Formats: sequence, structure tokens, C-alpha cells
Amino acid sequence: MSQYPILETILSPADLRKIPLEKLPQVCNEIRDYIIDTLAGIGGHFASNLGAIELTVALHYVLETPEDKLIWDVGHQTYPHKILTGRREELKTVRKFNGLSGFPKREESEYDLYNTGHAGTSISQVLGEACARDLLGLNHKVVGVIGDASIATGMSLEAMNHGGHIRPNSLVLLNDNYMSISKNVGSISNYLNALISSQIYHTWKKYSFRFLQWIPLIGPALMSFAHKAEKSFKHFMMPGGLFEDLGFSYIGPVDGHDVIGLVKILKKSLQLEGPVILHAITQKGKGYSPAEKDPIKYHGVTPFNRTDGAMAPSDSTKIGFSKIVGNVLMDLTKKNQNISVITPAMIEGSGLKEYSEKFPKNLFDVGIAEQHAVAFAGALASGGSIPFLCIYSTFLTRGMDQLVEDVSLMNLPVRIVIDRAGVVGADGETHQGLSDLGYLLGLPNMSVLAPSKGQDIIDGLCFMEKFESGPIAIRFPKDSIPIQDCNFTQPNSIEVGKFRKLSDGSDIGILSIGSILSVSMATKQLLEDAGKSVKLIDLFWLRPLDLNALEEELSGVKSFVILDESYVDMGASGYLLNHFQPKTLQKFLKTYALPPEPILHGERVQILKHYNLDPATITKSILSF
Amino acid sequence: MSQYPILETILSPADLRKIPLEKLPQVCNEIRDYIIDTLAGIGGHFASNLGAIELTVALHYVLETPEDKLIWDVGHQTYPHKILTGRREELKTVRKFNGLSGFPKREESEYDLYNTGHAGTSISQVLGEACARDLLGLNHKVVGVIGDASIATGMSLEAMNHGGHIRPNSLVLLNDNYMSISKNVGSISNYLNALISSQIYHTWKKYSFRFLQWIPLIGPALMSFAHKAEKSFKHFMMPGGLFEDLGFSYIGPVDGHDVIGLVKILKKSLQLEGPVILHAITQKGKGYSPAEKDPIKYHGVTPFNRTDGAMAPSDSTKIGFSKIVGNVLMDLTKKNQNISVITPAMIEGSGLKEYSEKFPKNLFDVGIAEQHAVAFAGALASGGSIPFLCIYSTFLTRGMDQLVEDVSLMNLPVRIVIDRAGVVGADGETHQGLSDLGYLLGLPNMSVLAPSKGQDIIDGLCFMEKFESGPIAIRFPKDSIPIQDCNFTQPNSIEVGKFRKLSDGSDIGILSIGSILSVSMATKQLLEDAGKSVKLIDLFWLRPLDLNALEEELSGVKSFVILDESYVDMGASGYLLNHFQPKTLQKFLKTYALPPEPILHGERVQILKHYNLDPATITKSILSF
Repeated sequence: MSQYPILETILSPADLRKIPLEKLPQVCNEIRDYIIDTLAGIGGHFASNLGAIELTVALHYVLETPEDKLIWDVGHQTYPHKILTGRREELKTVRKFNGLSGFPKREESEYDLYNTGHAGTSISQVLGEACARDLLGLNHKVVGVIGDASIATGMSLEAMNHGGHIRPNSLVLLNDNYMSISKNVGSISNYLNALISSQIYHTWKKYSFRFLQWIPLIGPALMSFAHKAEKSFKHFMMPGGLFEDLGFSYIGPVDGHDVIGLVKILKKSLQLEGPVILHAITQKGKGYSPAEKDPIKYHGVTPFNRTDGAMAPSDSTKIGFSKIVGNVLMDLTKKNQNISVITPAMIEGSGLKEYSEKFPKNLFDVGIAEQHAVAFAGALASGGSIPFLCIYSTFLTRGMDQLVEDVSLMNLPVRIVIDRAGVVGADGETHQGLSDLGYLLGLPNMSVLAPSKGQDIIDGLCFMEKFESGPIAIRFPKDSIPIQDCNFTQPNSIEVGKFRKLSDGSDIGILSIGSILSVSMATKQLLEDAGKSVKLIDLFWLRPLDLNALEEELSGVKSFVILDESYVDMGASGYLLNHFQPKTLQKFLKTYALPPEPILHGERVQILKHYNLDPATITKSILSF
Repeated sequence: MSQYPILETILSPADLRKIPLEKLPQVCNEIRDYIIDTLAGIGGHFASNLGAIELTVALHYVLETPEDKLIWDVGHQTYPHKILTGRREELKTVRKFNGLSGFPKREESEYDLYNTGHAGTSISQVLGEACARDLLGLNHKVVGVIGDASIATGMSLEAMNHGGHIRPNSLVLLNDNYMSISKNVGSISNYLNALISSQIYHTWKKYSFRFLQWIPLIGPALMSFAHKAEKSFKHFMMPGGLFEDLGFSYIGPVDGHDVIGLVKILKKSLQLEGPVILHAITQKGKGYSPAEKDPIKYHGVTPFNRTDGAMAPSDSTKIGFSKIVGNVLMDLTKKNQNISVITPAMIEGSGLKEYSEKFPKNLFDVGIAEQHAVAFAGALASGGSIPFLCIYSTFLTRGMDQLVEDVSLMNLPVRIVIDRAGVVGADGETHQGLSDLGYLLGLPNMSVLAPSKGQDIIDGLCFMEKFESGPIAIRFPKDSIPIQDCNFTQPNSIEVGKFRKLSDGSDIGILSIGSILSVSMATKQLLEDAGKSVKLIDLFWLRPLDLNALEEELSGVKSFVILDESYVDMGASGYLLNHFQPKTLQKFLKTYALPPEPILHGERVQILKHYNLDPATITKSILSF
């Protein structure tokens, strides 16, 4: 007999809606088993998907998707949604090259309305869809699903400020698991925790009366419903003053794993006028004991043992670039307590777990709040601290305006540590780090370092601590190196503006920018195999840059190219070309970089090859000139 | 006798603090007269400065500035602050080239801690200063002043979410005048209005008791103070649940024009532990009757008649580019009700006043919320509406991440109408529109139009309405043209990707980008006077661009230059150079653009000349090659 007897009958949400209400728990069980079975083999986002099963089933059961609009925030919790919308078999390919995206993707399915990845977009999108519906005279439902970390982003709060004012009919399901990726921080998180505390639950009757009175039309009906539902919901109905102050009706907290209860409360909630927040409590990793116990570890998994959850140990002879950062910052803070480290909700991802335990006063986790993170770091610098802002390339864009206005124009010495730069691999298009060089080099006063190897990060961070003359950024990819190649105790000194000539030659010059050095070196080899002599220069410094010396080097080659792991129009090449003398430009052939289009997901090497950035293709192109 | 007898004795805040408390109202009166007298002659930000006099005097009176840190949000309300901090005489030069900045500026005074201009930065900066103080073991006060529109920005809300969690000692004075520049919108604004409604005021005693109990230490003292203060404060002390939910202590509302009352409540508030919001009600334009009656008109003034407030009428034969946009959008919406227009709190500035009255359902003023504005526009497009996002160049940067993630990667047809592009003049460095071309051209799928004249905007907007294949941006400066030069009824059709050859020649090619065309034409004339034949090309289209045809044109000149009213590394030239063939690049001489440094304020022509972008200097440079 099939392992998933009901699930196999569900090829679309319409099939789900034919199933009797009382069988929905079984549907959820099968989805849970299917996800555990599948991800044990291939890895992927895990704990958050286990937590979102019941609410996904309830939503597709109650809504008439795809006519009704279902919008996901961030979207790494959409595996149950993908399973229910015709992509069950394909889930085995998730996050692989040419496979399913790990996030909603319009190109995949009509049930995926938005390509997502960054947090806090869904309420804006719910409002946009609802306003478009009303302008066009249509009457479908619009529902968003947002996590408790995402709802505290500035973007979500901006959207609530607007939505609570214009009040289109819409529903936002708050999927509250007390954390998103890491443990959640911030006063809104504290507020949500207070809402769901048992003390409040025990007084729910008193409050629910007040709340239900306050809903003019269906209050009485809901009140009757509430009394009936009392036994099945752990927590039920009390006023969420914060959300009400923001103009939203608030219902909850409700048990986000009681699928039948969710179906009932969703039906009622969707009848309310204006924007509604339905607050559901879920557990990350629900139903798989190792993930319930350590949801942070099981947020994203590599293949694991189905029985005990064991994942293959990481290679202990290697150290990741993020961890290198954490180690260097610990060494520096030991010597100088004025150092501060700022992270927007990425303590684990940025290698700062140990730092946060050893230096809790110096570590500021601001939540998913990149705008605030950048301006806050600027003020820490102005106030006399030595701030290191640790951030992923893709998320720094959220703080672009603050980088301009609140850091670079004032020349404040913020040290910006940019992780996950370049092609990011499995996360794909919404997470690519392909723009940072372009806008950093466009900013007044900004110094920029582009390491090509792990030791550069150690040397660079030590250099940056002492660098007081303005903002400085260092950017590097997700990568690792043998620990034995790291020299933490005696970092190399760095000479400002100096590039590195790695080989000399007179036929072809290669200007290699940061993380793409391995491709550049292989290309150099192939060109030499073809009889060309190659001058390979690893720029390392992008600004300041000893331009005179660089142009002097380029005067010694017949022609040169630039290799950059960025969007071609948002990398370093435009900046370089703008500053070269005409006699240097006369030798320029081409920039090899990513095209200005959404860059697919897959392993970095596959992606580079797909976009013609492998050594063989580049060599062929250079030789064709 | 002097017109300002007390004011003339105040050369710094230390002098102010020597004045007896009871004389502060007279100080305020003199500052008010001085501002009215001065701005009547020269113009500048006006109504908001009149509203901030008493709170500025009270703050400098209570704080030990500059040791205590006083931080301004936006900063166009800092004329009283500049007067009190040694810049009274220089106020006559405000917003002029080489004169005082219209905003706080670190280079001007040790009392100006941050160069500001964009809204919502102050709470992040208050927190950064407070955390740096605590890390360094210092104990000065940190106080911010923020308006009611700024406090509803996502950035402020992010900061409150963080600040309410870590709770450093600090004070945020909420200067609530019911509006910032335009009438304020949003549920937080509604909430603030509810707080200060008379109904709440009349029940203040009941609530203040609850509130004062809740302050553990000084509650009883404050309560006694509150009773004494009852008569002098119009509104006093009731719980601000929203702020308390966000972890801030809330005090208010208090009368923001009672300087003595402000001094007393500030002293008490600064003794509280943790972060405090002090909510002061002020009136924009206070004390000058024409400005009190029409604070929007008197937000920023040209020279006016001291007696009746009359400003010179604007030239009725001319029409501003912003108003052109408003008119075209009205014409388009008359024919197609699916059009939506989104503005982040800039109805007046973006020429949309009449539009908002005629098409209230189609106009979405989202408040100062650029992140939400961009994602919301994307969702309106996805939902079937035809969204025009009207935004200033400098503020679009706030929505950069949403432009990437929530519009361009999904190829959603949002029409982006970018006003105030290029050198902005009197507002200066924090408001320059010098980056938009660089990042727009770095975005996947983004089409970009750079008009060089007013009719281009009419033609462009009509074209954009029908352009469904992806996002498209049009960018233009603050400028105006004779109304008779506008053809609204029969716009010209636009050919995709086509540039305009304005003159033919074989010596020198000039690629002119958008708004800088007048400089390019004058340069061409000077070059011709020097005996050179010049091919002048007005690009208009930047993407897509008929590159083959352009390179064919450039093959006919000996050399060429690019003129771009952008930061040199954040404009269009890097993009162009990246896409030219080597044989074209061989003829390239130089990009004439703004250097990568903060660009001063002053009249546009002065600024261009200061940075060597006047026709004579460019010509001399070209001839030197």
C-alpha cells in the first residue's frame, strides 16, 4: 500500500477541497512524512516547513486558490504549498540546478504569486492585490502569511500603517513560532510573547467579550463560536492592542497545528470587513523530534538520518569565511571593548554565535531591520564605538539609503562586513550578492576591499579596526578554507590601494576582482596553454586603488579583460573603465560578469558555467578577439 | 534699541542657560520675530521652524549641549537651533551657495551631530549614541526630536522595535503638528490624533493615575507635578499604548508651545530609566497668522511680504515638470480607471494635488514609506492595475531593495516617475538625485528613459501607460518650461531604444544624458567656436538602447565624451562603457559628471560650475586631449 494514500489523490488544491474536513489531520500527517522523507535525502529548508503544514492545508481548503490570492512572506516555508499545488514529485529537485526553487516562483506555478526571499514583503503585496482588486471591481479574497520576525520589519510596519488607514478587505495570517531563523528579538517579539503567555490565556473569557463586542457585525456569531471552540483551541481571542492601534482587527492567538480549528476560524475571519490579523501559534520543526528540540540547527538541513536526525558532520579541518569573521572579531574585542558588532537577525549565519555568548554587551542583534542596522552603526561610530556591521550582500540593499545618507555622506567609520557576496548557489535569484560592488563604489567616501582568499578576511578585518578615516567595506562569498591555512595570530599588514600581480605577461591582462580569482587563474592557465603570456592582477583593493601603478602594468600588455562576479552593470568594471586614461581603455576587450537578468539557483560552478563564466568559455571568447 | 535685545546676548546655549526661566517666552518671541524677519527677505523652510521654537529653547535650556547629544530628524526645523548655537547672523545665508545648510551639518557646528534630510533616522541615531555612551562608560544625555510623519517610517519603527527591547536611557521628543510637509496619513497618524482628541483630554485625570502608578520611582512626584501643571497644559499624560507596546515609556501629550512647561516636563522625563517618548503638540507656522492658516503653502517659502505673507506669484506662463506629470496622469486616468498613482507623502511636491482631488480612489499616499510604496506598486501591477509610482530621486533609494526584489526580478510593469533627479540646488547634499541612473541600469529588466525636455515627460508617460513588458523608469530634474511648449493633447510617439542626433560632426562626439542637455549644447557651441565639428547625441533612451546604431554614429567621430548629471560612478557612463565594442572604446576620452563626494548646496548652475561641469571648463578639458 502507498505510503501517502490521500496525498497521492491531491494533484491541486481543488482535490484537497473535496476531502472531508475530518480527514485533514491525515492529510497533514502525510505531508509531514513526505517532507521528512524527502529532505532526509536531499536537504533544504526544513523546520519552518514542518511548522507551516496545518496552516497551509487550512488556507488552500478555505480559499478558492488560485482565484483567491495567497501570498507568502520570505517563502522558505512553502514546501507544503508546493506539494499541494501539483509539485509533490518535483520537491525532490528543490534548490538543485534546473529543479524547483526553494522559494515561491511565478515561473513555476500559477499558485506562486510573488518570487520572494527577503522578509516583510507580504503585507505590502496583500494591500496592493486588494487595492487592485477593488479598483478593478473584482471580489476575490487576498490572504498573506507572515512570520513573527518578518512582521517586525520596517517594511511590514509601513504597510500596516498604510493598510490600517485605507482598510481594504484582506487577511494576514501571522505564523508565530517565536523565531524565524534565529531566536527572535525586539519589542514586537516581546509583545507577541506577552500576548500568548498563559496568564493572558487564562483570562481569555473576560477579554474575548470585550473583543467580540467591538466587532459590530458578526460579533455575536463569533462569540457563540468562541464558546464552542474553547476546548479545541489552546489560546483564543484577546485584543491585540498594538495591531488594533495600527488599524487592523486582531484575532487570536489560535493553535496553528489544529487544522480543523484553523479552517473554522479562517472562514469566520474572512467574513470580517477591513484588514484582519489572525495570530496562529506554531512550532518550528513540529512533528519531528530532533527539529522540535533544536529548530535553529534544523532551519536548513543537509541530508540526514531519518531515524535520529543525524547530519553528516561538517569537515572539521575546514573553517567557513563567516566563522573566520566571528573569530577575528572575538580576538579584536578581547583587546578593545569599544568594538560593537551589529547583525540584522543573522547571528548564526554570520558566524557570531560564540561572539554573542562571549561579548553580549558588544553584540547588537537588531532583528530583520537593515535600515536601522546601518544608521545605528553610523551612530555607534559617531558616538565613539568601533562598529562592525555584519550583513549578507543581498540584505545590505535594504539599507542602501542609510548607507548613503547616514554613513557615507558623513564619512562615518563604519566597518561593513559583507558575507554571501557573488553567486550564492541554492537560494537563487532573490539572494544573489551581485550588486554590492556597484553601489559601494558609487558612494562618496567608501573604501572597498574584495578578498580573493580566506586569509584576506583576517588581514582585512584587523586592518579595518584601525581604519578611522571613513566607512570601509569588505566583501566575500560563502566559502571555506583549511584551518591550517589561517593565520589568526599574526595577520599580514595591508598596504592601502595596492593590487597584487600574480603573474607577468605581455599578451593579455586579466583584472580579477575578489571571489572570482579561481576562475581567473584557470583562465590564465588555458590562455597560457594556447601560447599566450598572461598578466594576472588580483585587485583586492577597489577603492582607493593605485590607478597609476595599475595603468602602468596595463601599458605592458596588448589587451586586457575584467572578470567580476557581479551583475555586469552593477559591479566594479564600470567604475574601473570610468577612471582609466584613454590610452589604457584602448586595450580593453570585455567585462566577463553576470548578465542583467535574474540569476538561477544551483551550485555556484553550475551557475557560472550556465552564464558563460567558466574558464573554457572565457578563454575561447578572449581568443576570439 | 535693538529689535532682539535678549537674543543678541545668546551666542551659544551656555548663554541661554544663564537666562531666568521666566524670560524664556521672550527668548522664543525674539527667535520667532528673527526667523520671520529673516525669511521674509530670503525664503527657506518656514512653518516647521516656527513650530519648533519653544521645544528647541527648552531642549538647549535643559540639556548641557554639546556634551549632551541633541539629534534632529529631517532637520529642516533647525533654524531656531542654528540661531541658538552661534549661527544667528549667518542664517541670512541659509540654503545659498557657500552659506548655511538648510539642514543640520557637522561641518558647520559641533552642535550638529548628523547631516540629515531623509525622514526617520533620529531614533536609530539616538540608540546608537546611547549604546556607544554605555559601551564607553560615559553618562551624558541623548535626546532626539522627531516629527509625527517621521515616526511612522519603517526605519523609525525598526528602531523602536530594537530600542524598546534593549532599553538604553534616552529620550525621543515627538514633535506632533498633525502633518510634516503635507497632511499626514496612516494609522499611526490616526492613532496620534486619537490620543490628542478632546475626549481623551477630558478624561486625562482618570488615565494619568494609571500611567503614573506605572512609573515606579518618580510616579508620585510626577503626579503631584501633573496636578499643578493641569492649568498650563492643554493636554497631559495619558497612556500611549502603542508606544508602551513597543517598549517605550510614554509621556504626553503636552503643549509644545509652553516653553516653561516644556522645561519642567523635560527635566522630569530625563530622569526616567529606559527609552522615553515625550509627545508634544505643536502648530506648524505658530505665531505667524498666514502660515498658521496655510502651513502647507508656508512649509517652504520664497521671499514674502512681512505684513500679509504675500509671496511673489509664480510665473503663470510656465509649468513645472511635476505639474506636467500631474496633468498627464489626470488625462490618462480619465480614459482608464485602472490606473493607480502612488506617492510617499509627496502629493504637493509631485504635482498631484489636483489629481488627488479628482481621483481619490486611484491615488495612494502611503506616507513616508518608500519601501512599502515600491512593493505595493509591484503588487498593484501584479493585480492588474497600471501603477505610476511618483517619487523623488533621493527618496527612491529607500526603496532600492524593493525595486530589485519586488519589482525588477519579477519583471512587474511598474511605471516609476522620478522627479528631482540630478543636482537639486538649495536642499543640497542629502537630497541630490545623482545615483538613480546607476542603480536603475544595474537592475534586471528595467527600462530607463532620461528626458532632456518637458515634452519628453508628456510623451514618456503616455508611452509608459501602454508599456506592459516590464518595469520602466523616467527621470527628470526640477524644472519648468513655457506652457505653450507643451503638447498634452497629441503627445509624440516614442520609438523604443532610439537616440537623437542633434548635430553632426566628425571631430568630437558628445553623448548627452537627459537633464544635462543645455550644458552639452553650450559645450558644442564652444567647441564649434574653436573650430571643431561636433556630433551631439541626446540619448533619451538608456535601456533598451540601439547600441549598434549608436556605435555606428561614434565610428564617424575621432573621439567622444559623455556628459551625465550623476555621480561619475553611479550614472550611466559605466553602463555605456561596459557595453561598447573595443573599437568604440578606443575613441573615448572622458566622462564629465559629479565627483564621488558630498555635493554642496546652491543654485544648480553654481554647483555645476563648482564641480567643473560648466561649458567653458568642459570645452577646455576636451580640447586639452
